[in-house]
Amino acid sequence: MDISQYMEALGRSAREASRLVAASSTAVRNSALLASRDALDNARAELADANAQDLERGRANGLSAPLMDRLELTPARIDSMLEGLSQVAALADPVGSISDLKYMPSGIQVGRMQVPLGVIGIIYESRPNVTVDAASLCLKSGNATILRGGSEALASNCAIAACLKQGLRSAGLPEAAVQVVDTRDRAAVGKLITMPEYVDVIIPRGGKSLIERISADARVPVIKHLDGVCHVFIDDSADEEMALNIAINSKTQRYGTCNTMETLLVAQARAAQVLPRLAARYGELGVELRGCSQTREVLPEITHATEQDWYEEYLGPILSVKVVAGLDDAIAHINTYSSQHTDTIVTSDHGHAMRFLREVDSSSVMINASTRFADGFEFGLGAEIGISTDKLHARGPVGLEGLTSRKYVVFGEGQVRR
Amino acid sequence: MDISQYMEALGRSAREASRLVAASSTAVRNSALLASRDALDNARAELADANAQDLERGRANGLSAPLMDRLELTPARIDSMLEGLSQVAALADPVGSISDLKYMPSGIQVGRMQVPLGVIGIIYESRPNVTVDAASLCLKSGNATILRGGSEALASNCAIAACLKQGLRSAGLPEAAVQVVDTRDRAAVGKLITMPEYVDVIIPRGGKSLIERISADARVPVIKHLDGVCHVFIDDSADEEMALNIAINSKTQRYGTCNTMETLLVAQARAAQVLPRLAARYGELGVELRGCSQTREVLPEITHATEQDWYEEYLGPILSVKVVAGLDDAIAHINTYSSQHTDTIVTSDHGHAMRFLREVDSSSVMINASTRFADGFEFGLGAEIGISTDKLHARGPVGLEGLTSRKYVVFGEGQVRR
Repeated sequence: MDISQYMEALGRSAREASRLVAASSTAVRNSALLASRDALDNARAELADANAQDLERGRANGLSAPLMDRLELTPARIDSMLEGLSQVAALADPVGSISDLKYMPSGIQVGRMQVPLGVIGIIYESRPNVTVDAASLCLKSGNATILRGGSEALASNCAIAACLKQGLRSAGLPEAAVQVVDTRDRAAVGKLITMPEYVDVIIPRGGKSLIERISADARVPVIKHLDGVCHVFIDDSADEEMALNIAINSKTQRYGTCNTMETLLVAQARAAQVLPRLAARYGELGVELRGCSQTREVLPEITHATEQDWYEEYLGPILSVKVVAGLDDAIAHINTYSSQHTDTIVTSDHGHAMRFLREVDSSSVMINASTRFADGFEFGLGAEIGISTDKLHARGPVGLEGLTSRKYVVFGEGQVRR
Repeated sequence: MDISQYMEALGRSAREASRLVAASSTAVRNSALLASRDALDNARAELADANAQDLERGRANGLSAPLMDRLELTPARIDSMLEGLSQVAALADPVGSISDLKYMPSGIQVGRMQVPLGVIGIIYESRPNVTVDAASLCLKSGNATILRGGSEALASNCAIAACLKQGLRSAGLPEAAVQVVDTRDRAAVGKLITMPEYVDVIIPRGGKSLIERISADARVPVIKHLDGVCHVFIDDSADEEMALNIAINSKTQRYGTCNTMETLLVAQARAAQVLPRLAARYGELGVELRGCSQTREVLPEITHATEQDWYEEYLGPILSVKVVAGLDDAIAHINTYSSQHTDTIVTSDHGHAMRFLREVDSSSVMINASTRFADGFEFGLGAEIGISTDKLHARGPVGLEGLTSRKYVVFGEGQVRR
């Protein structure tokens, strides 16, 4: 069987399984999640064996130390997968909820019902725990999944999938509701993203280049998250302590996350006062600053930011700093250079706050809060499969709701059109 | 300037204009709509001249009579464009509304704000009134539009656009918020659908082949409506008079619309009683029936339906009829052959009604109502730019809400992450 036929077989069985999962009850899907948890718990030895194979292969292939670390399934990581399954089982079921039900002049009642998307393809890199996270959120929301993990984690992913299939079976659901692509052949991805008859949406999780490649070639909608070039703007009227706290927290609470601030904008009127205090704090924390000419008038010791710096997602202890004339200038800068992920204003001016909220064209726009809050858990979604910087369908953190769609439902009593 | 440069210039100016439109107030956008109406009313002579050019060119090119009819801008059609503008101005503004605002344990308040999509590309065929309909709905929802109408209507579309631009100007909005692609070169479409940097979504309006071609080549999300293979299922427990009324209305109230029924499913237990009565009514109305073998046992005079008939959107007085074992069989048939547009069950069994509602995977699913109700106006949307058979973003009739997206907004008081 060639790779194309193999993927089509996977797709066809996922499509069939998706109908049964969509029609299943909340209790059945929850029991599958809890049975999967127990199966994983009972399969620790098998998981360790499979993971050891992946690690050995990784060592032989000279995988880097960080990749080897991400690949490892420690007992603590297995515990956290089990805990994750319990949490997902405990979330409210989004499927089947009907909202906005209203009578129309014709007498029919029209509303919208939350329904699963169908079959979701997930493409991700090394961490095997994503297999459990993604599969469990898709199952909870009534979808079937096809998982294509990193080839270096294939044995671990297959061992995890075996446990999930056991959970599905014990709940009376089809095993094909969760399938791992069991080949290292790269052609599998190319096929997965071009089968709209079997796959409703692709969610890639990984670096920008992976996601750009997938988006360019996909014939299926892609919920994508490219990068996080996030901004904090310190407005004329900002409370100084608040501005310092938010600017420091947004940059340094964690460097490697997509909701970390990468560019700080400071209103001209506040630059002379605020920048030296900020520079001192960032200096203590080891953050390198790169500034525009006006910033360097106040902080002559820092390097000059190039045009490229305004586009940069450093994911590390580097921050570009720009002095702007005021609100308009800040919004214009953000709408030009931001990756439309998360941007914050620190202000005490109500009008400025509301204009910023409305005019900044990003997935999450904040007033007086750290960019680090842009996260499914902090936003109360209970779960997160990713953060979308797209505009259509899902924008911002994607939880269970983002894995569903809304169809129209009509309750009539025999009405016909005149 | 070549076509690619021309389209990029259009895209760039649309992108700039979209920011200003998105930031404009409800009153400003409404005044642009009303000023456009007045401009069209004052330009009846110019519109007639431009339309006469198109009609003459159409005659010279041997355009078919129906196409010539659709092309003509009669005074009544201009009146209805003016009326449409007034109606759109009177609709509630979706932009900026904030919903689901809730406090989180961290103290931040998180909600979702309705925001414009940005730049919307509309690709449509002959009717020039679509230019006004589409542009006005996009403007109302805070978007910029690039309109690519049928080449046979180019002069009319440009004359209409001139009036819309006058309306925008008089309200202080950028003229580039509404642009008509002023060339007959087909390469313009190819470029329009592959400029994700300037165009956020494409809405094609036209035949299935046009839409399939655009979807296959687009590098921008497409809100698409392929076809309407709609079903009515007469369940075991259906009220007979209600079943007859809905089956007749769904097929014959209008033949050419996408929400017209194309296949009727009848539960086995009711076939012998219901089919002859239906056949008599359809016979009077001149509807040709094509049946499965079981249907033909009751109605031996009708032709045999082929496998292809179950996929067919007749858009005319032809109906395929199938006898099914019951609910499960009906749902299976619909989920196999339906175009996921609109499907109805006629039943008095509550359990069957609710299972049908949940398990039929279509954009609009109805109980005891004619399929002909699947329409933005009948659903209370106040307007309709199209009907989507997609799952992501918009499903079913697309009104102003479907031209917007929801971003997350956060109200803080200085919170940072711990």
